[in-house]
Amino acid sequence: MGFKVIIVGAVAAGTRAAAHLKRLKPEAEVVLVDRQALVSYSGCGLPYFISGDVNDARELMNTTYMMLKDESFFERVKGVTLLTRTEALALDRKLKKIRVRSLETNEEKDLDYDQLVLATGGRPIRLEIPGADLPGVITVSNLAEAVKLREQVAAGRINRAVIIGGGPLALQMAEALSDLWGVETALIAAGNQLLSGLVGPQLAGMVRRKLDEHELREVYLGERVKRVEEGEDGLRVITSRRELETDLVMTALGVRPDSDLALAAGLELTPGGAVAVNSRFQTSDPDIYAGGDCVENVNLLTGRGVYLSSGALASRHGRIIGTNLAGAIEEHDGVSGGFLLKVFDAAVGAVGLSLSRAREEGFDAASALVTQADRDQFYPGWETMHLELIFDRTSGRVLGLAGFSPKGEALAARLNAVAAILKYQPGLRDVANLELAYAPPFGAAVDILHVAACAAENIMAGKNRVMDVDEFAALFSRRQEVAATFLDVRGRDNAEPYLARYPGDWINLPLDELRARIGELPRDRKIILICNSGVRSYEAQVILDQAGLVSTYNVQGGLGAARRWGLELV
Amino acid sequence: MGFKVIIVGAVAAGTRAAAHLKRLKPEAEVVLVDRQALVSYSGCGLPYFISGDVNDARELMNTTYMMLKDESFFERVKGVTLLTRTEALALDRKLKKIRVRSLETNEEKDLDYDQLVLATGGRPIRLEIPGADLPGVITVSNLAEAVKLREQVAAGRINRAVIIGGGPLALQMAEALSDLWGVETALIAAGNQLLSGLVGPQLAGMVRRKLDEHELREVYLGERVKRVEEGEDGLRVITSRRELETDLVMTALGVRPDSDLALAAGLELTPGGAVAVNSRFQTSDPDIYAGGDCVENVNLLTGRGVYLSSGALASRHGRIIGTNLAGAIEEHDGVSGGFLLKVFDAAVGAVGLSLSRAREEGFDAASALVTQADRDQFYPGWETMHLELIFDRTSGRVLGLAGFSPKGEALAARLNAVAAILKYQPGLRDVANLELAYAPPFGAAVDILHVAACAAENIMAGKNRVMDVDEFAALFSRRQEVAATFLDVRGRDNAEPYLARYPGDWINLPLDELRARIGELPRDRKIILICNSGVRSYEAQVILDQAGLVSTYNVQGGLGAARRWGLELV
Repeated sequence: MGFKVIIVGAVAAGTRAAAHLKRLKPEAEVVLVDRQALVSYSGCGLPYFISGDVNDARELMNTTYMMLKDESFFERVKGVTLLTRTEALALDRKLKKIRVRSLETNEEKDLDYDQLVLATGGRPIRLEIPGADLPGVITVSNLAEAVKLREQVAAGRINRAVIIGGGPLALQMAEALSDLWGVETALIAAGNQLLSGLVGPQLAGMVRRKLDEHELREVYLGERVKRVEEGEDGLRVITSRRELETDLVMTALGVRPDSDLALAAGLELTPGGAVAVNSRFQTSDPDIYAGGDCVENVNLLTGRGVYLSSGALASRHGRIIGTNLAGAIEEHDGVSGGFLLKVFDAAVGAVGLSLSRAREEGFDAASALVTQADRDQFYPGWETMHLELIFDRTSGRVLGLAGFSPKGEALAARLNAVAAILKYQPGLRDVANLELAYAPPFGAAVDILHVAACAAENIMAGKNRVMDVDEFAALFSRRQEVAATFLDVRGRDNAEPYLARYPGDWINLPLDELRARIGELPRDRKIILICNSGVRSYEAQVILDQAGLVSTYNVQGGLGAARRWGLELV
Repeated sequence: MGFKVIIVGAVAAGTRAAAHLKRLKPEAEVVLVDRQALVSYSGCGLPYFISGDVNDARELMNTTYMMLKDESFFERVKGVTLLTRTEALALDRKLKKIRVRSLETNEEKDLDYDQLVLATGGRPIRLEIPGADLPGVITVSNLAEAVKLREQVAAGRINRAVIIGGGPLALQMAEALSDLWGVETALIAAGNQLLSGLVGPQLAGMVRRKLDEHELREVYLGERVKRVEEGEDGLRVITSRRELETDLVMTALGVRPDSDLALAAGLELTPGGAVAVNSRFQTSDPDIYAGGDCVENVNLLTGRGVYLSSGALASRHGRIIGTNLAGAIEEHDGVSGGFLLKVFDAAVGAVGLSLSRAREEGFDAASALVTQADRDQFYPGWETMHLELIFDRTSGRVLGLAGFSPKGEALAARLNAVAAILKYQPGLRDVANLELAYAPPFGAAVDILHVAACAAENIMAGKNRVMDVDEFAALFSRRQEVAATFLDVRGRDNAEPYLARYPGDWINLPLDELRARIGELPRDRKIILICNSGVRSYEAQVILDQAGLVSTYNVQGGLGAARRWGLELV
């Protein structure tokens, strides 16, 4: 008797599980079932297909060796039967059968299984508002929908779009529509910042500023969409603050697990509605596995379940499921979480917990924000990078890292180093001593990541007392009311335009003159220390501490971060 | 009574120790002593100054905020006294004094210390051959020497150069002289490959090929230089195989620890001649610390001492020494070792042990070489990367990673992830499940590093039986004598030129036809499986295994790696 495995869902987790099982146990009979016609594509690639960066939808379905992953490929190369346009209707766990229906012929049949895999993925979160069902109000959650949207855009039928959401998908879709196709795009997000919960306000401000630079200026934060109605010429979106006329409304609010089939079959779900699984991805029925976007992961930092939608992660789930189906035991450790996102000609990303998440989880969390070149500064072509290292002030444990950088690979090089060690519960010293690959064209001897760890240690020790760029901007705008001195410790040339613009409010004492001229500073006012990156201002803080001037604050990341965040003082 | 610290050597370790100590303990009196006039520079930047990528030598001495680190800087910003052109002559450990001499005035004096730091660095390894002392036979081991060389080159006085060495420094110097200045440069190395001991022959071949492409064709491997003599017009280098006329001979054989001062003072040295230190960098005299290029490190993978010359590492030593001088305890874990190197428009690098080193250390080591795009292949602009993952076949422990990639940052992103975890003794599954930062423009959902770990697991399991590209090249060149079938499993278009060129010797059965046409294959011959990357050929191997054809070998890294290595079959 053969060993029969049915896998429901043929995108990332399902196809990887099928292929891996067949490699380990070639005699297994494996059937993949999916209701879509186009399967086994890169979900993360959809925005790049819509933007036109990727020409042909089929490129998203290719293997690395450029074979199209269609029915024939699965049959001939993998020895796996793929049934597309086939809906899984119901499970009979007692008889170990699954009922499926062909969407072509409407024919129904039962498939027997020895073991079953649910890789049913996620389904886009829809807004529960009046008008959500109008034509022109869409989500893009699979390749077929992306193909349809791109056809409309390419035909010039979409001139204006409203995207609802402030997360990575919403940003990608906004860039895709506006950058190449010139669609006038507005972004509406309920949160008070972009990428809420993923990065802090400083890095989020840099992203917003980047959208600005690329003419994507209609970004409405902290607004709720109340309803969508038919307008005179297209659709009308009514938010808590405004009305927008548009041709298209795209909700890009992320996904939630699609666990209908599991629920109907009586399998356990998590409180969040995902299919409950153990570390081997077995559901409450040990002959049924589930993985990918229909399950939760264990967060390695908090020990709690966390829902993450990611093709890369789903694929790793699939491989582990394949191993377990083949009879070996492999467990999934859990995830520390993270994302990476191209934003026009820059990149933003994070691993682990953001500062706000870390605080919600009960950590005594703080963060160090640093600004530095992405390589040795004597080497031509360097770009300024910003990293925010999130840590627990009590224990010194590293909780996460976020960054903004013109070069995505350079940011990935730092994120990967921290992502790799988070499961080992590293302390700040582990990061300060990381052996990062170093050559002057690609890194710095004292790398920005090392500097971030050292800055965090100094914050922990109370020696680096910091102020964030947004706090600094707010304080400076109220400078007439507050008893604070704004002390620029850069060289005279750097400071000159600020001195001219803010006479009396902006003071300059270059770092190399500070020890000698300390007597010139007021002893009864708060001193805000400013330089380009936060390094010189920290050096100044150490010098002032020695002289007993301790009511000082170092603007973290310096004017370099402040400018990228959107503060234009001169 | 003040706390006095004398630090001998003011490049990376010494200056970082001084600055860190002063931040932690501002009242400490710190004196830096160095025999050079130009100090606190990036040693790793010297080749880029010689090449002209860096215009002004002083750029190598700047802080990240562009202040020149000279005597005045150390005095005014760091509160540290820097004595340049000052030689440390002898230590009196009983009286805690150090005798120094000014190279300007020849004046000698004694400096008292409470604690002392030896950061005396390394000194270049010189060839012990006749003629090594001739004018024109040089090393470049400090900024002053680099300035002198660049002046000569820029003045057009050097038209031909011979560089002795095959390691990173030799390659950098060869690129520096040949690329911008057009110096006819020959490289002579005693080893049988470039970067011997650092990477395997496959990646070393890719580097050599890259030199070739950039007209650096005079690369003589496996040759020893026997002597240098004065020629008719310049110098003559006589090796075991040839004579070369040249204007300049540069030995770039790396450095050995400069421990003369420590030895004379009766401090313990290691068998390799480095200053012996504990994990806090204390020497056998607890009031004397040593760090940077004059000490060894503990290799985390072998537990044994290893000598590495690196400014980045020296700087981390310095920070830890500073902490200990200030009275806190911080220990250094040791290193896993590694390097990263730009080679014209590509990069090569490694972390941990190479395959040959791992075998020398007694590991049952093997390696998986994979070829894949550095990002999702549907995203424009991808480049082909090669990674070699070194592991222990018995335990599955990961021992090292090496790679070759057109994009240095993309290589660093993979190296850093593995470098970060080596101290935690990761297994292959830890690498297969790494949460690498992923976005289609900067990585792949199933990243090349994940693929390398999976390939290694398959090698361990005996399912992926591999042949290296150099073995393949040798075997194919003897194809008339060996009973082997060379089976190309790519599509017909890819295979066509090979079929035309090698009729009868080269067979093509595309992967998607293999299951159906398995009967066409001979059952009595070794089958060498070939595709572009090693992925399809592995899939083919699995299919053939099922059919009982098990005498098959998968060419690791595929023709993609073979071509980069230098095999041009069509």
